[in-house]
Amino acid sequence: MPVRVAIQGERGAFSDSAARKLLGDDIDVIACRTFDDVFEAVKSGGADAAVVPVENSLAGSVLRTYELLGTHDVEIIGEALLAIRLTLIARPGVTLGGIRRVLSHPVALAQCQRFLARMTNVEAVAAYDTAGSVKLIMEGESDADAAIASAEAAAMYGAQVVETDLEDDPANYTRFVLISTAPAPANLRQRVGSGERKTTILFRTPNTPGALFRALAAFALRDINLTKLESRPIAGRPWEYAFYVDINGGSEEPKIVNALNHLRETCETVTVLGTYVAAEHVR
Amino acid sequence: MPVRVAIQGERGAFSDSAARKLLGDDIDVIACRTFDDVFEAVKSGGADAAVVPVENSLAGSVLRTYELLGTHDVEIIGEALLAIRLTLIARPGVTLGGIRRVLSHPVALAQCQRFLARMTNVEAVAAYDTAGSVKLIMEGESDADAAIASAEAAAMYGAQVVETDLEDDPANYTRFVLISTAPAPANLRQRVGSGERKTTILFRTPNTPGALFRALAAFALRDINLTKLESRPIAGRPWEYAFYVDINGGSEEPKIVNALNHLRETCETVTVLGTYVAAEHVR
Repeated sequence: MPVRVAIQGERGAFSDSAARKLLGDDIDVIACRTFDDVFEAVKSGGADAAVVPVENSLAGSVLRTYELLGTHDVEIIGEALLAIRLTLIARPGVTLGGIRRVLSHPVALAQCQRFLARMTNVEAVAAYDTAGSVKLIMEGESDADAAIASAEAAAMYGAQVVETDLEDDPANYTRFVLISTAPAPANLRQRVGSGERKTTILFRTPNTPGALFRALAAFALRDINLTKLESRPIAGRPWEYAFYVDINGGSEEPKIVNALNHLRETCETVTVLGTYVAAEHVR
Repeated sequence: MPVRVAIQGERGAFSDSAARKLLGDDIDVIACRTFDDVFEAVKSGGADAAVVPVENSLAGSVLRTYELLGTHDVEIIGEALLAIRLTLIARPGVTLGGIRRVLSHPVALAQCQRFLARMTNVEAVAAYDTAGSVKLIMEGESDADAAIASAEAAAMYGAQVVETDLEDDPANYTRFVLISTAPAPANLRQRVGSGERKTTILFRTPNTPGALFRALAAFALRDINLTKLESRPIAGRPWEYAFYVDINGGSEEPKIVNALNHLRETCETVTVLGTYVAAEHVR
């Protein structure tokens, strides 16, 4: 039976490609308008799982994803790394010179600043999704005449790629995570495969000097490698922060069990968001 | 003589208000299209100083500012905290029901999601600036009929506020920094005033387990408080990070001089981006 996977955006979005990389093609994609809708779909059982972006190598972390991971009872069960290649897409027959309004996700627009600066007399319009922008122009539901999205999205909606490699910097990768309700069903976990694992942890330190240092001691004193540290403002407490860390290793390994116990001694809250097979790192 | 202050965006932008909060009204604002242009204006001498946002209490850090701080020979000499209040602005005579296209900066649009969701049949269009959006609709240079910006921007361009308090969350503050070429001219530094100080430092750790922990020891072992820690991907080295920290205290205080020497022992690079009077923290 296909796994029902919620993504932000339409079929053909980068999250769709990441979902197929993780789970294969036997999936039913549930297109959601916002990240909040994606997490709601998992919570309500409308989806078995979801694939959401957490970090882009140029734009940094996807803050809303981190916020939702911290406030929903979900588990991270996999990750995927995807090269982001942006193309200019139009209805068949439209040429570069005839384009006046380009639709795309604001992050995609931001990554094509140099291309857009060269396109004088072209207006960039923000939409909720890259692939969704292609769908809108093909269905005639927007007065824009082009979209910026992946070549896969162009193919999916029968549109035409007018220009490729639009991004300012080609070292453009996005890291996605696969989430499910916690605890994750065993059949879903099996589909992700096996390999070296990592663990994502959310913690909040007391607002005292050295609090973060004492928290990180739990890992450093055990030679546990941090592959990522993200600080997020705590809602309603301006300029106080929660920390998200990724560490190498599975959460049931004795060394990591000890580190988590140590961390709980120094922190106000500690939540293990998931332990999962690490995607190959890009160098 | 008025200080020439570069900002991203047009006169009336939130950066303009922050500049006046820091330097008073005797300033000449130099409107720049992008953050890159702002830093170029300071570097070339076209501006004496610049005011740029570094962090919003809802959206998190302004990543491009951090990148530019890390790659330009500038010094942070002040900071300001500003409450962000977003209003819907139109040409005089336009009513809420008559609005079809709203122009604003993508971050401002993102902070008004609930308001925009209620406004069915209204298209949100991304522009380079909040105040600049008001200017565009008043000069008839856009086919949008409304903008989202501050009430100050509406007043500056003779526009009309149609609705106030558009933001999803009213706890919406932005922190700005004042920068100049390094070292900062004494007369400019004097204008910012005096008070408790803080220091912003950029460092890059070797990619080894415990490297960040060893770096933070330089501060923790001396009871120096970190008020902010931001990790940024290093360009061309995907998933490696540079760290920006704010600490309490001035960079010439003996304790902090020692901490910086200690930090240099453990890090690949250490740069003091500035030492300046801290803005009052919002609680």
